[in-house]
Amino acid sequence: MKFICQGQELNDAVLKVCKAAAARTTNPILECVKLTAQDDTLTLMCTDLELTIIKTIKADVKMEGSCVIPAKFLSEFVKKIGAEQITFTKIDNAIEILYGENHGLIQCQNADEFPMPKEINEPQVFNVKASDLKDLAMKASVAVAQDDSRPMLRGILLEIVGDELRGVALDGVRMAIISKKLDKVEQDFGIVITARALLEIVKLIPEDDTTISIQIQENHLKIDLGDTIFITRLLGYKKDFVNYEQIIQKTFKTSIVVNREQLYNAIERASLLSWTERNHIIKLNIKGNNLTLNSSTDQGNITENMQIEHDNNDIVIHFNGRFLIDCLHVIGDEFIKINFCGEMGPAQIVPNEDKNDYFYLVLPMRP
Amino acid sequence: MKFICQGQELNDAVLKVCKAAAARTTNPILECVKLTAQDDTLTLMCTDLELTIIKTIKADVKMEGSCVIPAKFLSEFVKKIGAEQITFTKIDNAIEILYGENHGLIQCQNADEFPMPKEINEPQVFNVKASDLKDLAMKASVAVAQDDSRPMLRGILLEIVGDELRGVALDGVRMAIISKKLDKVEQDFGIVITARALLEIVKLIPEDDTTISIQIQENHLKIDLGDTIFITRLLGYKKDFVNYEQIIQKTFKTSIVVNREQLYNAIERASLLSWTERNHIIKLNIKGNNLTLNSSTDQGNITENMQIEHDNNDIVIHFNGRFLIDCLHVIGDEFIKINFCGEMGPAQIVPNEDKNDYFYLVLPMRP
Repeated sequence: MKFICQGQELNDAVLKVCKAAAARTTNPILECVKLTAQDDTLTLMCTDLELTIIKTIKADVKMEGSCVIPAKFLSEFVKKIGAEQITFTKIDNAIEILYGENHGLIQCQNADEFPMPKEINEPQVFNVKASDLKDLAMKASVAVAQDDSRPMLRGILLEIVGDELRGVALDGVRMAIISKKLDKVEQDFGIVITARALLEIVKLIPEDDTTISIQIQENHLKIDLGDTIFITRLLGYKKDFVNYEQIIQKTFKTSIVVNREQLYNAIERASLLSWTERNHIIKLNIKGNNLTLNSSTDQGNITENMQIEHDNNDIVIHFNGRFLIDCLHVIGDEFIKINFCGEMGPAQIVPNEDKNDYFYLVLPMRP
Repeated sequence: MKFICQGQELNDAVLKVCKAAAARTTNPILECVKLTAQDDTLTLMCTDLELTIIKTIKADVKMEGSCVIPAKFLSEFVKKIGAEQITFTKIDNAIEILYGENHGLIQCQNADEFPMPKEINEPQVFNVKASDLKDLAMKASVAVAQDDSRPMLRGILLEIVGDELRGVALDGVRMAIISKKLDKVEQDFGIVITARALLEIVKLIPEDDTTISIQIQENHLKIDLGDTIFITRLLGYKKDFVNYEQIIQKTFKTSIVVNREQLYNAIERASLLSWTERNHIIKLNIKGNNLTLNSSTDQGNITENMQIEHDNNDIVIHFNGRFLIDCLHVIGDEFIKINFCGEMGPAQIVPNEDKNDYFYLVLPMRP
């Protein structure tokens, strides 16, 4: 194998694919990048078996072939070389890297041992705007479980219902449902992929309204952007996920409309008091058109008041402030509606306007 | 005690003084800030007994007095309140903080237990430009010892010799001597203060040519900028520090002039090879007008070549690459001179031009 490529182009490509390389593993080949020179292209691939990222760039290929070298070394090394032209030549079990007057020689791993990406030939396909997929991933991921006790809850359910794509995540004490309109009605279905894979993917897709084609086949999801391909294993299908629809209550005792930023800042300040404790218990006292937020610990107490729109059923309810902050942080609206189902029932955070693009559910705490 | 102050002004002041608050300590009062309201000012003070920072801002004082509250809480809290007006009122053993419609009540520590700052009345004084003190601290600190085995080596010797201020640091394998011209000849003397205190101080002094007056008295150094005062304990005097001058060799076997950035980048790349090892051994082979830099590990090897000016005594010498990178990183010059005293003797990195504003000494390693 021998090829010449531009340092800057290689740098950009390595930085992207190495997001899929394993960080610490018992199988060192998963910490590597596979380089394949063929025709007039260089293909780079990393995989940790959960997520695979493949990127193709132009190269002047003198001799076709492939090699496998540590991803972290290559990304740091190419970054530090800068924009020069770089020549790679395979010599026995090593790859020689020539740049200017200088050269490095790096031991290769056995390319045959590198996992092959899943072939996807006749997939089910649906299309979504890149910006919508990105927004959905960011807003749904706040409710994903952080521990491994139920692996399915480390995932986000991507579900199509008519012309709507839904992202659903829940961790036992809160839930997020994010909805995006699709350009056309697609066949209903639901899959679960890890939040980590979805977040890595949306970081690397365009920021704009580009249409992203999502292919599903045999436990795998694939996104093909031409020069960049993402493949991730499914954690499961809708039937494997929690039946989230039955959790949603339709009747409420109390509904309020409140300024999102004001509520967010108040909880942030109130949570500061618990700097020596694990839980950030926040008490909300809703009385008439006034919301009083209170936090009390051995160190002191904080009381904040804000004006709200309110339908007149007063309520006193306690939350873990962190859970409220997480979702208030990713919502962009100026005003939000909160529906309460009683002091020990879940609260729903929904848009104040007549749209249903997000729905958060948070369980209260015992005082 | 009762006073009213501007949130933004208080925020700036707390952020500065809390750099001197202890992070983790068995004496919680050292994690606090002392607030003193007197006349029409509020004085904030933090100290970890090594460094004290005192800052004064305007305040509308309704009742004079002082209180002591956790510095980390106050800085986070005031930052999150934003630019509003804030009223502090001492009520029994707590301080009430009023902001807009809202209020917090924070338990105070006993103000009598807060350490008093050192009184400095008849100090020895010398003046230095703020930008010079900053540059000296940044460039000398790279050679400060990182472990506690010899506490004096955690310090920087600040020495006046005629019209020159020198900062000297050394850790057993390298040394830095940074020199700055003073506006006038001062009385010769030398003191040692911790690198940490000096670095915190230079972060908070102006970036420009403002003259900083440094006062020394009875084991303490004080810098008084009017609204901000820094006080730090001396680690010792020149007599307590290593007699660094005797380490400096005056005759060399080999001298080279090399492009600083080129050498820095080459060592950075070569050091990447040792990602699984602790030491970054770099071999320099100087032959005629060529410097060949080589790094070799089980993972591979890297060879870089560069043109140098050279006085014709060839040499092969090994270094810990990290020690060279540290000083090459803080030097701004395009070209530097390196003097070698043989394969096992110290190397000196000095300016190529006819000035002596920095002098680094690095011991080589056995290959």
